[in-house]
Amino acid sequence: MSIDKIMKPKAIAIVGASGVPCKVGNEVMKRIREYGFKGEVYPVNPKGGEIEGYQVYTDIASIPGEVDLAVLVTPPKAILQNIDECNAKNVKGICVISAGFKEVGGEGVEMERELLEKVQKYGMRMVGPNCVGVINCAPNIQMDASFATTLPIKGDVGFISQSGALGCGILSILKDINIGFAQFVSAGNQADINAEDMLDYWENDADVKQILLYMESIVDPKNFREKAARITKKKPIIAIKAGRSKAGASAASSHTGSLAGADMAADALLKQAGVIRELDLKTMFETAQAFAKCPLPKGKRVAIVTNGGGLGILATDALEDNNLEMAQLSESTKEYMRSFLPAAASVKNPVDMIASATMEHYQKCIEACIKDENVDAVIVIYLELMGAKPIEMAKAIMETRGRYPDKPVLGMAMTTSDFFPRLSEEAGELNMPWYAYPEEAAHALARLYRQKQWQDKPDGQIKTFNVDKARTAEIIKGAVSQGRDQLTTLESIDVLEAYGIRACRYGMGKDVEEAVKVANSIGYPVVMKITSKTITHKTDVGGVVVGIQSEEHLRNEYTALIERLRSANILDGLDGVIVQEMVKGSREMVCGIATDPQYGPMMMFGLGGVFIEVMKDVCFRIAPLTDADADEMIKSVKSYELLEGARGTKPAQIEQIQETLLRLSQLVEDFKFIDELDINPLLISEKTGEGIAVDGRIKVRMDEAKAALG
Amino acid sequence: MSIDKIMKPKAIAIVGASGVPCKVGNEVMKRIREYGFKGEVYPVNPKGGEIEGYQVYTDIASIPGEVDLAVLVTPPKAILQNIDECNAKNVKGICVISAGFKEVGGEGVEMERELLEKVQKYGMRMVGPNCVGVINCAPNIQMDASFATTLPIKGDVGFISQSGALGCGILSILKDINIGFAQFVSAGNQADINAEDMLDYWENDADVKQILLYMESIVDPKNFREKAARITKKKPIIAIKAGRSKAGASAASSHTGSLAGADMAADALLKQAGVIRELDLKTMFETAQAFAKCPLPKGKRVAIVTNGGGLGILATDALEDNNLEMAQLSESTKEYMRSFLPAAASVKNPVDMIASATMEHYQKCIEACIKDENVDAVIVIYLELMGAKPIEMAKAIMETRGRYPDKPVLGMAMTTSDFFPRLSEEAGELNMPWYAYPEEAAHALARLYRQKQWQDKPDGQIKTFNVDKARTAEIIKGAVSQGRDQLTTLESIDVLEAYGIRACRYGMGKDVEEAVKVANSIGYPVVMKITSKTITHKTDVGGVVVGIQSEEHLRNEYTALIERLRSANILDGLDGVIVQEMVKGSREMVCGIATDPQYGPMMMFGLGGVFIEVMKDVCFRIAPLTDADADEMIKSVKSYELLEGARGTKPAQIEQIQETLLRLSQLVEDFKFIDELDINPLLISEKTGEGIAVDGRIKVRMDEAKAALG
Repeated sequence: MSIDKIMKPKAIAIVGASGVPCKVGNEVMKRIREYGFKGEVYPVNPKGGEIEGYQVYTDIASIPGEVDLAVLVTPPKAILQNIDECNAKNVKGICVISAGFKEVGGEGVEMERELLEKVQKYGMRMVGPNCVGVINCAPNIQMDASFATTLPIKGDVGFISQSGALGCGILSILKDINIGFAQFVSAGNQADINAEDMLDYWENDADVKQILLYMESIVDPKNFREKAARITKKKPIIAIKAGRSKAGASAASSHTGSLAGADMAADALLKQAGVIRELDLKTMFETAQAFAKCPLPKGKRVAIVTNGGGLGILATDALEDNNLEMAQLSESTKEYMRSFLPAAASVKNPVDMIASATMEHYQKCIEACIKDENVDAVIVIYLELMGAKPIEMAKAIMETRGRYPDKPVLGMAMTTSDFFPRLSEEAGELNMPWYAYPEEAAHALARLYRQKQWQDKPDGQIKTFNVDKARTAEIIKGAVSQGRDQLTTLESIDVLEAYGIRACRYGMGKDVEEAVKVANSIGYPVVMKITSKTITHKTDVGGVVVGIQSEEHLRNEYTALIERLRSANILDGLDGVIVQEMVKGSREMVCGIATDPQYGPMMMFGLGGVFIEVMKDVCFRIAPLTDADADEMIKSVKSYELLEGARGTKPAQIEQIQETLLRLSQLVEDFKFIDELDINPLLISEKTGEGIAVDGRIKVRMDEAKAALG
Repeated sequence: MSIDKIMKPKAIAIVGASGVPCKVGNEVMKRIREYGFKGEVYPVNPKGGEIEGYQVYTDIASIPGEVDLAVLVTPPKAILQNIDECNAKNVKGICVISAGFKEVGGEGVEMERELLEKVQKYGMRMVGPNCVGVINCAPNIQMDASFATTLPIKGDVGFISQSGALGCGILSILKDINIGFAQFVSAGNQADINAEDMLDYWENDADVKQILLYMESIVDPKNFREKAARITKKKPIIAIKAGRSKAGASAASSHTGSLAGADMAADALLKQAGVIRELDLKTMFETAQAFAKCPLPKGKRVAIVTNGGGLGILATDALEDNNLEMAQLSESTKEYMRSFLPAAASVKNPVDMIASATMEHYQKCIEACIKDENVDAVIVIYLELMGAKPIEMAKAIMETRGRYPDKPVLGMAMTTSDFFPRLSEEAGELNMPWYAYPEEAAHALARLYRQKQWQDKPDGQIKTFNVDKARTAEIIKGAVSQGRDQLTTLESIDVLEAYGIRACRYGMGKDVEEAVKVANSIGYPVVMKITSKTITHKTDVGGVVVGIQSEEHLRNEYTALIERLRSANILDGLDGVIVQEMVKGSREMVCGIATDPQYGPMMMFGLGGVFIEVMKDVCFRIAPLTDADADEMIKSVKSYELLEGARGTKPAQIEQIQETLLRLSQLVEDFKFIDELDINPLLISEKTGEGIAVDGRIKVRMDEAKAALG
């Protein structure tokens, strides 16, 4: 695989290498030398001579050996020719650091197109352009081919950053946050290699134990989802997806559309793929630290060991905030700790050893908590007070932790900030993560637990139901041929029924006999509504009659209706009546489909009725849905409690609602030109607990629909 | 005021001073010497000699001069005698560092009681026991009378911490977070001086420009609220109230009670007092930094100036998360910046000067943004890249900021963590705060804006309405005399009416004529319900008739009802019928009263009906409510949108609902033994927009009620 040529090269050419300080071509040469690249280094510069102790070649052709990776730092106008020269030399790995391409617009866009064309034609793979470079910290490679000012620190993280500057900044803080990289790719404009390629590349790379992503866009959401969902079952992916702005949500006409802000789609996609999304860099690194140094916990029961009561309380609050639990320590654990701790100490979780706590106290309490069967993880809090020095204390704690590697132990130290860089300098390889505040430890631990739950969760299945595609196509075609991109309510209900979705039953009756026939087939009670070309406000003329209980009742109401219309002199336009099943229920849910311009169709489920926009108690997932997705959607809204049958209502048929979502998902997979769909309300029948589509609206994208339906 | 004796002493005695390293009595002596206390220092130890260069006195009596503050570090058993000796010497300020009192239980509790008794008898004030000490950084005092391992840094913060260890820990991180203290009090067991006393003390102390609190409990909530609400109009109070556990909420029997978790009361209290509540220490210090170095912004329009696009996007996301706005830069600002920035830079907010940004670029862009009328505050982001070094860059930025002190400017630097302590060492007094991540700057800025809004907000008034107290007392007395702590629905409705709260109108009718009279006085439509000693399930026998439209209709229904009962052979127990106003409306709100064991009565308002426990869209405030509190309660729930008249409903009478809350508040002020009260639903009339109490329940505390009502 040719990404190997970039990430694990035996020989590198730096085209545009320079001896002039502060030039990018010089910085890259310095990093390569300083970090001690294990392969051959061939600087290329027409002036020749020597740079950073390496012999310079005047052009690519004159390099004596084979070259795996060419790092290009020449001016943008020279790049295309460089690529040709690389090809002549049979170089397959390219990293274009130089900027001046798509990001500047105009002819830069054109140049980037040509660049990609050449790269593809020559069978090369390329990182960049407009990037900071690539790094591999493996001991047999030791490549820092970047112009970041700080050398990397070795670790287990594979990191790809879409922002170059951010990548540089991050390298400079690695030491302070005790995070190390296995490999780092500054993706730049991602003309060829993007985050998804690196996911593939890192999936089975043993050096990379967790993958960190900084993304501003996802190139191919479907592809990303598929890959990430597979990889996250093996190793965690932690991502920042920046650009969460609300702009753009207001244009949609449906409920589903108007609630589907730009970030809903990205957020849904990441959830479905099992990616841990963090909203800021600091939290991403704190989480990565935990994954680097901890096994996954088997449960969520946490013991806290502290020498300061206040921090113990703050940690307890933080655990609750993160949906973790305070472990109930066993009696024997408590008794044991009571045997050596001072009387004023508390052996109930949080274990407060008080300010006089010694190294021995720490070691014995941590050991006791780890060994306790009621404990899944331990958070150790150390406040610098009189007595033991922080680094010595941390070493003692890590010594204990080293003897019990099977449960996660996370440390928190309140002391001067130089503790953190000093710790890895003085204590060598850390066997547990260290944080500055209890909330950080609690959040990171919660992420470990979430990953455990994700890995244990069975893969979801995309189900396929028997549906009437032909009928659906016909209905939509009918609307489109009349120039309508919106289906009528009745057409929409027909489409839902063709897809086996339980909708409110109805029928048309041109006269009373037909109306009775329809009503008898639906079953009482029913609702009767007039349909008339001339009357727009049905209720003003008593044109909607609810609660019709029997055939006799219907006949009477029909007669009365005709009478009312006749006396108001508006009988003429009458087409007949719609007779509709009357569903009784107080719980109005909503489900629907919205289309994100980039992520495609996504599904919504939640609380409907008047509360839909006010409460925004809805959940989104990208289509197609798996059964697990649908199940999660239903259970993740607050109003799920109502479905379960809160306050004496009939429990809803959760599986039937789940199937409704899956059938909708199938509908939009089959008819990709469906732009928006609302079922509002999806009324929960008080009689059967079914979710019944009482109202529906469907909107298609006209041109696509015409093209697809012929 | 004698707290001056503690915080601004001219002479200190350290009773129990020691020359033995690592003993508390030695650490305190060291801190006093190292920090250079400006007054007299008298160590007291029976052994005599010299400690840390100060002459030791063998007992308190033999100290030659006057003593303002005695710091006691002797064993707990000696403390009471020390206090007597201090009194003999006329010492009025006491700080008991020694532990072994209330916190150990048993005889410690008794000792603390005796200690306080003596202190009060002698007219002393006391900090502690079981604390770390007291600090005053004023140049004419320079007192560090604590055993914290790190010396304090001078600043404008007054900090009182209920956790001693935490206080120590915080002193050790001050330098890294660029926060300085004016005064610090480790409150310990708070036997005498507590947070409220220090609020008083610091209210008019010019050295203390902001007050930070770490609290695990609030001693006297009412007193705290009163003081804090006054002080926060002058200087910010930032608090952590730890111990947010959900335990204890489940015991209540009413809706209001069950939603009022332990932390709801504390949270409400802090909000009403204008206190900025942070949930963790890190955030508290970040906020304090902003207050220390920034003026308050006039508005919420923020400009971002960055050399890295990625961090600009993350900062934009963070502003939106914190309800701040991206400023729309004026055309002239953009044009000016375009004149000197490279073509690839973006002059639209966020201003991305790209990686090549020079010091001059920073200075000119910051200046342009500050001067822009559309900008209320600026966040400057600096990523360490090739070129300018962080400290130099920060100095250049602060030079520009120094020329424009009227708008807040906040800095964010992504570089090695030693930047932060080095900055204050090398750049002297900072004129702006510096953060490590954009989210930190955005949150801190949002707090400045919140303080501005709080200070500008008019003080709320507690209103008093004309109510019928006598009638209310009579109704409650009636229930209590029957041994009931729960009022019936009708009694509850009567109480509400006596307090002028719009409740559903009703009346009893023993026969049809009485029923008609009641109905005519209420107005149609009405609901008729039987009231019978023998029938418990009214609806089973058709005992509830809704939608009665006229007198004739009522007479017919009454006759039919009697007929039904007669034929079912259950006419005997009938007492008559309740005729009730029928209120039409789809919006069910809730309001109520719950009693927190520590904070007393608190009010709730929010979404009622079936959604109350599911959506938890409710808001709490401590009684008594001001009109501003009531207004805020109504506007802070999500369902306020429904009240405004979303989706074609009639706008609710917000002022009438506000008055309902104020009248309820008056009710529980007048009858303090009301334990719980629910108005659920408070139905919003579709006709008038009024909030009408359709159902009510009131529960009193029996013993208190009996005592109060005689």
